[in-house]
Amino acid sequence: MEWIDSSILGRNAVAKGQPGAKHRLSEEDQGEFHYVYGPYAEPVMRIAPGDVVEVETLDAFGGAIKTEDDLPSQVLNMPFVNPQNGPIAVEGAEKGDVLAVYIHSLLPRGPQPAGTTALIPSFGALVADGNLMLNAPTPERVKKMDVTPEGGVKFSDRITLPYEPFVGTMGVSPEIEAVSSLQPDYWGGNMDCPDVAPGAIIYFPVQRKDGHFFIGDCHGRQGDGELCGVAVEIPATVTVQIDLIKGWSIPGVRIETEDFIMSLGSARPMEDAARMAYRDLVRWMVDDYGFEESEAYFLATQAGKMRVGNMVDPKYTLGASMLKEYLKS
Amino acid sequence: MEWIDSSILGRNAVAKGQPGAKHRLSEEDQGEFHYVYGPYAEPVMRIAPGDVVEVETLDAFGGAIKTEDDLPSQVLNMPFVNPQNGPIAVEGAEKGDVLAVYIHSLLPRGPQPAGTTALIPSFGALVADGNLMLNAPTPERVKKMDVTPEGGVKFSDRITLPYEPFVGTMGVSPEIEAVSSLQPDYWGGNMDCPDVAPGAIIYFPVQRKDGHFFIGDCHGRQGDGELCGVAVEIPATVTVQIDLIKGWSIPGVRIETEDFIMSLGSARPMEDAARMAYRDLVRWMVDDYGFEESEAYFLATQAGKMRVGNMVDPKYTLGASMLKEYLKS
Amino acid sequence: MEWIDSSILGRNAVAKGQPGAKHRLSEEDQGEFHYVYGPYAEPVMRIAPGDVVEVETLDAFGGAIKTEDDLPSQVLNMPFVNPQNGPIAVEGAEKGDVLAVYIHSLLPRGPQPAGTTALIPSFGALVADGNLMLNAPTPERVKKMDVTPEGGVKFSDRITLPYEPFVGTMGVSPEIEAVSSLQPDYWGGNMDCPDVAPGAIIYFPVQRKDGHFFIGDCHGRQGDGELCGVAVEIPATVTVQIDLIKGWSIPGVRIETEDFIMSLGSARPMEDAARMAYRDLVRWMVDDYGFEESEAYFLATQAGKMRVGNMVDPKYTLGASMLKEYLKS
Amino acid sequence: MEWIDSSILGRNAVAKGQPGAKHRLSEEDQGEFHYVYGPYAEPVMRIAPGDVVEVETLDAFGGAIKTEDDLPSQVLNMPFVNPQNGPIAVEGAEKGDVLAVYIHSLLPRGPQPAGTTALIPSFGALVADGNLMLNAPTPERVKKMDVTPEGGVKFSDRITLPYEPFVGTMGVSPEIEAVSSLQPDYWGGNMDCPDVAPGAIIYFPVQRKDGHFFIGDCHGRQGDGELCGVAVEIPATVTVQIDLIKGWSIPGVRIETEDFIMSLGSARPMEDAARMAYRDLVRWMVDDYGFEESEAYFLATQAGKMRVGNMVDPKYTLGASMLKEYLKS
Repeated sequence: MEWIDSSILGRNAVAKGQPGAKHRLSEEDQGEFHYVYGPYAEPVMRIAPGDVVEVETLDAFGGAIKTEDDLPSQVLNMPFVNPQNGPIAVEGAEKGDVLAVYIHSLLPRGPQPAGTTALIPSFGALVADGNLMLNAPTPERVKKMDVTPEGGVKFSDRITLPYEPFVGTMGVSPEIEAVSSLQPDYWGGNMDCPDVAPGAIIYFPVQRKDGHFFIGDCHGRQGDGELCGVAVEIPATVTVQIDLIKGWSIPGVRIETEDFIMSLGSARPMEDAARMAYRDLVRWMVDDYGFEESEAYFLATQAGKMRVGNMVDPKYTLGASMLKEYLKS
Repeated sequence: MEWIDSSILGRNAVAKGQPGAKHRLSEEDQGEFHYVYGPYAEPVMRIAPGDVVEVETLDAFGGAIKTEDDLPSQVLNMPFVNPQNGPIAVEGAEKGDVLAVYIHSLLPRGPQPAGTTALIPSFGALVADGNLMLNAPTPERVKKMDVTPEGGVKFSDRITLPYEPFVGTMGVSPEIEAVSSLQPDYWGGNMDCPDVAPGAIIYFPVQRKDGHFFIGDCHGRQGDGELCGVAVEIPATVTVQIDLIKGWSIPGVRIETEDFIMSLGSARPMEDAARMAYRDLVRWMVDDYGFEESEAYFLATQAGKMRVGNMVDPKYTLGASMLKEYLKS
Repeated sequence: MEWIDSSILGRNAVAKGQPGAKHRLSEEDQGEFHYVYGPYAEPVMRIAPGDVVEVETLDAFGGAIKTEDDLPSQVLNMPFVNPQNGPIAVEGAEKGDVLAVYIHSLLPRGPQPAGTTALIPSFGALVADGNLMLNAPTPERVKKMDVTPEGGVKFSDRITLPYEPFVGTMGVSPEIEAVSSLQPDYWGGNMDCPDVAPGAIIYFPVQRKDGHFFIGDCHGRQGDGELCGVAVEIPATVTVQIDLIKGWSIPGVRIETEDFIMSLGSARPMEDAARMAYRDLVRWMVDDYGFEESEAYFLATQAGKMRVGNMVDPKYTLGASMLKEYLKS
Repeated sequence: MEWIDSSILGRNAVAKGQPGAKHRLSEEDQGEFHYVYGPYAEPVMRIAPGDVVEVETLDAFGGAIKTEDDLPSQVLNMPFVNPQNGPIAVEGAEKGDVLAVYIHSLLPRGPQPAGTTALIPSFGALVADGNLMLNAPTPERVKKMDVTPEGGVKFSDRITLPYEPFVGTMGVSPEIEAVSSLQPDYWGGNMDCPDVAPGAIIYFPVQRKDGHFFIGDCHGRQGDGELCGVAVEIPATVTVQIDLIKGWSIPGVRIETEDFIMSLGSARPMEDAARMAYRDLVRWMVDDYGFEESEAYFLATQAGKMRVGNMVDPKYTLGASMLKEYLKS
């Protein structure tokens, strides 16, 4: 794809967006999976900027929900959910740099039905949290679905949804914190944003030496907000090209596709996530696209798009985007 | 358009979605404009269900900002902003019914540049509110733009945006309250949602006899969230067909287009607006499309779309939608 | 009480805090009660600044809950709850002035048990709102209590709580809006703040000619936050001295007692109410007590007190206060 | 103090509230301080339940602000702020137990002026966060104050505030996370709640073997909400008795004093922290004091008190309390 050559990745990264050596990180290679994004785990692999890694991820439940009779409250062992592959050390990465991750592909793996979603008591955007409210919990339920690139997501006999896969959780290690893989933040993590998809480049602000990249929690698809808290969770083979941009200081996660740029914000309440996303979009337009600040603010007002990634995680994630056609000089 | 025949409007409304008598409500006919949605104003017009009204609306500033030198802080007289046409009494409407408003068209009127946007001190999603914070206000600025259906929105020499007009403020009177036209709520009002556009049907829950419909505040276009608080404000000629659905009790505003249904929520913080929208979408799927509740919740999770209308008004407005193709039995 | 002489009321009001003519507004005098704070009702009484009015208020349910078997869902007729006396026109009051209301006394009236509280489905701080969430509603329940100044609030056989009465809802009319008496805002309304009590002076920013003062919804006592949404609701005889301060422009409700000054904020989410309250306290310290702004901000940080009035109404009300002993020059 | 004997600590803890061996953890003993609450640090000390530890804490700035000319933006090195002593391993503590910490005393140490507060750009409840808003930052400023138990807090020439010391940050290690000492949560951390004071017992839910107790960030005093984000920060000698209650499962931090019990909630937005606190108070009243749930909800509504600890940290902390006199059977 030639747009990559003109992307920020293509222009500024160490390997100029050219794919390097190919690596494989199988389930067996990974061995123990991780449940926090942090600096206290030893890298499972070291790569050079531009290298391509094919990763075998588990689903968010670590595969524990095998049938519709395996209820989350019985088979999950908190906080050991949302297992992550990694960390992958990227040579030369330092605080103040950016890891640029170009997602090549994402395929379901394992037996069908590969997809799982669930209603978990006291969790999800439309149910009362038992630590906040007195209401009796709503019923628990699991739904399994066939998920294939060709056949889509078999939601029910009546309804088939398009296969629109993305990576739910991905990012770099914080500097000194080790934070649950259920949480999104400025370093990435559990963003649950459907734009983190094959064909996109995701930019993460490096917080520590070698970056320490984590990835997991792939989704066959998801609506805006991940309403009940559980997308179409799949075990997957995801292939990513990980490059490095030296000396690019960004306050949070950014996305670039052929058509648009997007800034993500993760916070509560939701308006703070929205502000964080738009605030950074305006900053980006000013810093890299020559806009005067009030002009960028005006353009975001009249032409900005907002994606609600999740409204269920410890922080909500929203993305503010601008079409590249309005950024041309 | 034949889809109208199969719409809820077409199937259930008094006039079955057929256009009735045509009326005109010019600026002169309107005379005094209104700044609250309430039951204390005399109707300016009485119509039968199905009648079509061509309305001449003022822009949100009542036309007071004529040039880029007319600063809002100098020419506006709060709370007399966002002037509304109406109320239009609809015969036979009673509490517990729904006003179904099919938007035929929306055209800018008056001399060019017809479009106005502005940065207003202490107002907007990315600036500190002087009643909450200590920061010095950000600079005031006005931007005028040519806006035509053919030529689009001339944002700058470099950037032309598509003409994608919609009605910013529209709705019915509350039962006993008279609320600022700057505020959105379950009765409509200042929703600033770009889906309230030509080709869509908007359903409003009637709160009092004859409904008392208000309309104003047209926009040439707007990004998600109406970031700085001011869209491409235009004086307009907007044509609406106003029908009546007897005995349909809905908790808030709903939208139907050829492709999707949408529920709106207006609240703070933003997650409550999002929940309200999705909660009603689930209710709607259960009540009218035969879904079991947990199944509707699952489908909204995997296929729901969320629109951030505004994140600047006294309540934020978000819309949750579902493609009709997933609702077929 | 001599502190009144040195209060803002005593120093700056038209009648200098001296009580004027005495009036009585009985239940019969009032006739029809009001359910909105707005300019569209005719005054039930006209008074001069400084006049004292003894008002007979209804409880928040208009007396409809007579026994523990009268469930709110059966006997209430929304939106006709929280009935208000007034409006009382105050001669000479204009936008930009302040109504200073000194609360003399508050006594329960009518037969015992005079106090009512209730758990109302889908309402209250610890229960899911049915328009936001899917949970089944929690049970409805009414509790009646004897309430007397001497005997306190007989909460149960085991527990007697102190009689600490206050006015739940009080304020002036907005300029053009007519807003539900269930809502608090900058003009007052349903603040449910226990500091609006006998012995305190409450300052309201006048929004229209003659002020149009409303009052109702007295409470025998209440905890911080009014958790379930219903305090110890009582019909009452409340006596207030209503004075006028010309040309004092304040952005919202302020309170003065012998010991402290307090600013109220009403907003959602709760942090915005807290910010609004503290922001105005800082402003007040700068404007009237000679503090440099950063010094006022520091002092509020180290010595400010915050009262959570309600966390259940359409806007939450919080109060930020400072002891007068720290304000002396 | 005899009330301790009848406290939960006195009745249920391993050492029955009796002080055990005395230990000292000096600044030198501590050596390297910690900036996260987590399981990845080696214990600096092992104690038995009931042992008393005298700890020398640094102030929140690690002593880097020595004069009013040492601006935070110049002398602080994020994320290395709010240094913590510990972890202290408590023998026998396991997940599902409670660490009961009885605070004996808290004294300032080091040269005067021992107290520091500061206005830090883009931080604090009344200033715009530069990652959310466009406003220019507010000015930076440091204020140093003499702080002694006898002389109080010398806020200015004119104003002396009472010495009302408390521990800003204290708690146990999460199970697998290592979270910034700037953040409060269910395990404790940066709660900034003035009730965590000498004379009180603080109950923490143990998350891992030996509990791993951390402590730091002492305050000479603070107003409700810690408005500007920085209290009267002091280096201190704090003495705590650390006992263990086996098999008491609590969802978050609880406090007991001679007069009241309190549950803390840490969350955003603030209403969620308030709900969490009150929800747990109701649970506690039901579980340990024999209340029927609706009766506890009613009593919290009419007699509950709410403390706003902080409204500036990554999560806000509020406390809901009930007088013990209403809990007697």
